[in-house]
Amino acid sequence: MAEERFRKEETLEMRQRLIGQSCRLFYSEDPVKIVKARGQYMFDENGKRYLDCISNVQHVGHCHPAITKAATAQMDLLNANSRFLHDNIVLYADRLAATLPKKLSVFYFVNSGSEANDLALRLAEQYTRHEDVVVLDHAYHGHLKSLIDISPYKFRKLAGQKEWVHVAPLPDTYRGIYREEHPNPGQAYADTVKHLIEEINKKGRKIAAFFAESLPSVGGQIILPQGYFSKVAEHVRSAGGVFVADEVQTGFGRTGTHFWAFQLQGEDFCPDIVTMGKPMGNGHPLACVATTVEIAGAFTANGVEYFNTFGGTPVSCAIGLAVLDVIEKEDLRGNAIRVGAHLKDLLKKLQQRHEIIGDVRGVGLFVGLELVIDRRTKTPATKTAALVVKRLKEEDRICVSTDGPWESVLKFKPPMCFSMEDAELVVRCIDRILTDMEAKNLKLENEDI
Amino acid sequence: MAEERFRKEETLEMRQRLIGQSCRLFYSEDPVKIVKARGQYMFDENGKRYLDCISNVQHVGHCHPAITKAATAQMDLLNANSRFLHDNIVLYADRLAATLPKKLSVFYFVNSGSEANDLALRLAEQYTRHEDVVVLDHAYHGHLKSLIDISPYKFRKLAGQKEWVHVAPLPDTYRGIYREEHPNPGQAYADTVKHLIEEINKKGRKIAAFFAESLPSVGGQIILPQGYFSKVAEHVRSAGGVFVADEVQTGFGRTGTHFWAFQLQGEDFCPDIVTMGKPMGNGHPLACVATTVEIAGAFTANGVEYFNTFGGTPVSCAIGLAVLDVIEKEDLRGNAIRVGAHLKDLLKKLQQRHEIIGDVRGVGLFVGLELVIDRRTKTPATKTAALVVKRLKEEDRICVSTDGPWESVLKFKPPMCFSMEDAELVVRCIDRILTDMEAKNLKLENEDI
Repeated sequence: MAEERFRKEETLEMRQRLIGQSCRLFYSEDPVKIVKARGQYMFDENGKRYLDCISNVQHVGHCHPAITKAATAQMDLLNANSRFLHDNIVLYADRLAATLPKKLSVFYFVNSGSEANDLALRLAEQYTRHEDVVVLDHAYHGHLKSLIDISPYKFRKLAGQKEWVHVAPLPDTYRGIYREEHPNPGQAYADTVKHLIEEINKKGRKIAAFFAESLPSVGGQIILPQGYFSKVAEHVRSAGGVFVADEVQTGFGRTGTHFWAFQLQGEDFCPDIVTMGKPMGNGHPLACVATTVEIAGAFTANGVEYFNTFGGTPVSCAIGLAVLDVIEKEDLRGNAIRVGAHLKDLLKKLQQRHEIIGDVRGVGLFVGLELVIDRRTKTPATKTAALVVKRLKEEDRICVSTDGPWESVLKFKPPMCFSMEDAELVVRCIDRILTDMEAKNLKLENEDI
Repeated sequence: MAEERFRKEETLEMRQRLIGQSCRLFYSEDPVKIVKARGQYMFDENGKRYLDCISNVQHVGHCHPAITKAATAQMDLLNANSRFLHDNIVLYADRLAATLPKKLSVFYFVNSGSEANDLALRLAEQYTRHEDVVVLDHAYHGHLKSLIDISPYKFRKLAGQKEWVHVAPLPDTYRGIYREEHPNPGQAYADTVKHLIEEINKKGRKIAAFFAESLPSVGGQIILPQGYFSKVAEHVRSAGGVFVADEVQTGFGRTGTHFWAFQLQGEDFCPDIVTMGKPMGNGHPLACVATTVEIAGAFTANGVEYFNTFGGTPVSCAIGLAVLDVIEKEDLRGNAIRVGAHLKDLLKKLQQRHEIIGDVRGVGLFVGLELVIDRRTKTPATKTAALVVKRLKEEDRICVSTDGPWESVLKFKPPMCFSMEDAELVVRCIDRILTDMEAKNLKLENEDI
């Protein structure tokens, strides 16, 4: 297969003409054309190598040969739909069940995290017979109509907040309403949900679900305070709702210590519904909803079939199984623990030398570096963050991006094969860029916030 | 790869335990376990061959080697997301554009027909700034929350009809309100939409879109009367709405004579939005929305990114391109014309011998055989249809299924490599089964409608 069919300018011209411009390019002023990738490295049309710090979808590494092999073998054999009995779907569900608390034993396979979250909404509504949903501020749960409604990150820019949607404060202990110095931020933030539910009930409304990413990602690579989910689950369940943990960004061992990020909240906590997606198929459109026998039973009881054309096909499940195998065989969780700790450690050291680094946080290979103009006021250093991203690309061919309400958090969620040397390289480059910016006193001049 | 991991009973037990029971199996009383497939043939765990008359997803044939080859080559090279510039997405969009009227020149790639229809709704709303939708009776547009709302086939069994959804009569010239003998059923059915829109406007509401499958499928393999779409489009546009043609089931040459089923309605007709899905990736989760520069522009103008994680990746587009190549190289449209005509011809002859066959209709390899207890009253022969499906599977290992509001229409939408001999075989078997049922006078005894 030819690696390049068109010159870059031609590709760009066709892209602008043929693809909806709402589908944005990375580095829109000077997009990168990538033709090849392996592991955590991508290569442009001139063979130049880029270090990839952001592709969490290519979980076990770009173009992993074991995944390609499994996909090819199954594509050659069978890819009928899931209305025919097949071993792969049950084998895969069984393997996933083994990673989850026993209670979460029923699976629905779909094609994207968005489809998973939409189905989670349907399950919650059908089970609870309630309609309202509580979400965290700045959350993003997907691109579908129903999910824009429950994503403050999107609905604030679009149709606005629906009457059945309620926004709880983001439990951000760095810049939220309760911070590190609070004696029990987990409890305090959980109480905000409790009070919100009381307000909702006073209006005669009832909640179907509380939706949260186990580690809020678009919200700014947030690590939730201990005890938060357990307490929230209590409040949500006593109001007749269910707890949905959105693991679309964070599942499959990214945190290293645990297979699912919600497990960071303690062994006593179990969601009622878990949605999964991005890393699940290493780039193949594969996603899933796991739930309890009770919730699945209520959904079955309506007597209406749920058919997802491509969901749970033999090929999708073969790929999903291969991803699980590679995570185990290559000890990618161990790698996430070791490399993630090293990366965080190096960034913490960097923080001591650069005033602009307000916070370093993360777990495993889910890490955020928050830039601030002033550590006391915590004013977001949005422009500096954008400039660091640009210079890392131009000067070092390293891909990172920003997140958070002010796009002031540099995020790291690389393929899980990210190495010690990769971590050292990216930190060294950030150090050099920040040092240079400080020397030229560029930092504050470029900020107008 | 092992073709079978578990004994069939074990697979079934695991399926019942691990997979949501809303995900139904074909032949639920005695499901078929399929382990291998090629072209239009599937093989069970004992190597027994089934003729597949229903898998329209496996459009160019199950496990076509050219598709597997293209997928493997691209999987080995790159499968980054569409935020990076890549040739496949623009090449594929360009190839799709060549099949469509010039006006439909902007593309959004997604992972399922449901995602495509949901996005179509968003585009229509954003462009028109209206909210209401007109759909055809018995329509099914997908499994997402937003699509259940616009699918009478589903919402009647679930949450009911929303105030922003309006149902127009299905233009079924066999059993609808205007029939074959009507001088101009296309115009008459289009007028029902006109009057419906007038009613909607009287209530102070405004329509964003008219949604219809180009050939209503769940509705009973319906062939729409000539002139219907053009007239409807006039009414819809003068009310400020857009016309969405759902080609998820019918696109990619299934009709033989045309690449898109909406083109059966004449060259002067062009939808504002076309959604595509099932056959597009031959089983790979691949779907798309095509629209005009104006509609895409209105969507871009809201300033909000549309990012679909797996949509339009290099692998998805490589597979899509390979499907287009096979359709051309193997002249599958020509095959659909020839085999479809032969199948319809044979079924028409069968109709002369079997009173129970009320109607034979279709175009290309989209064919329906409607069974009725009485040709005059047209009472649906639901039980007989189910029995024919069951006997074809048990006695002949032929997979067909039913559709239509009363599940009385045997539907044929096989892989496009379906042969003359396949058509002859299935018709011969139906003939034998109907003859046997008539001899035993089983037909009417089994009907209680």
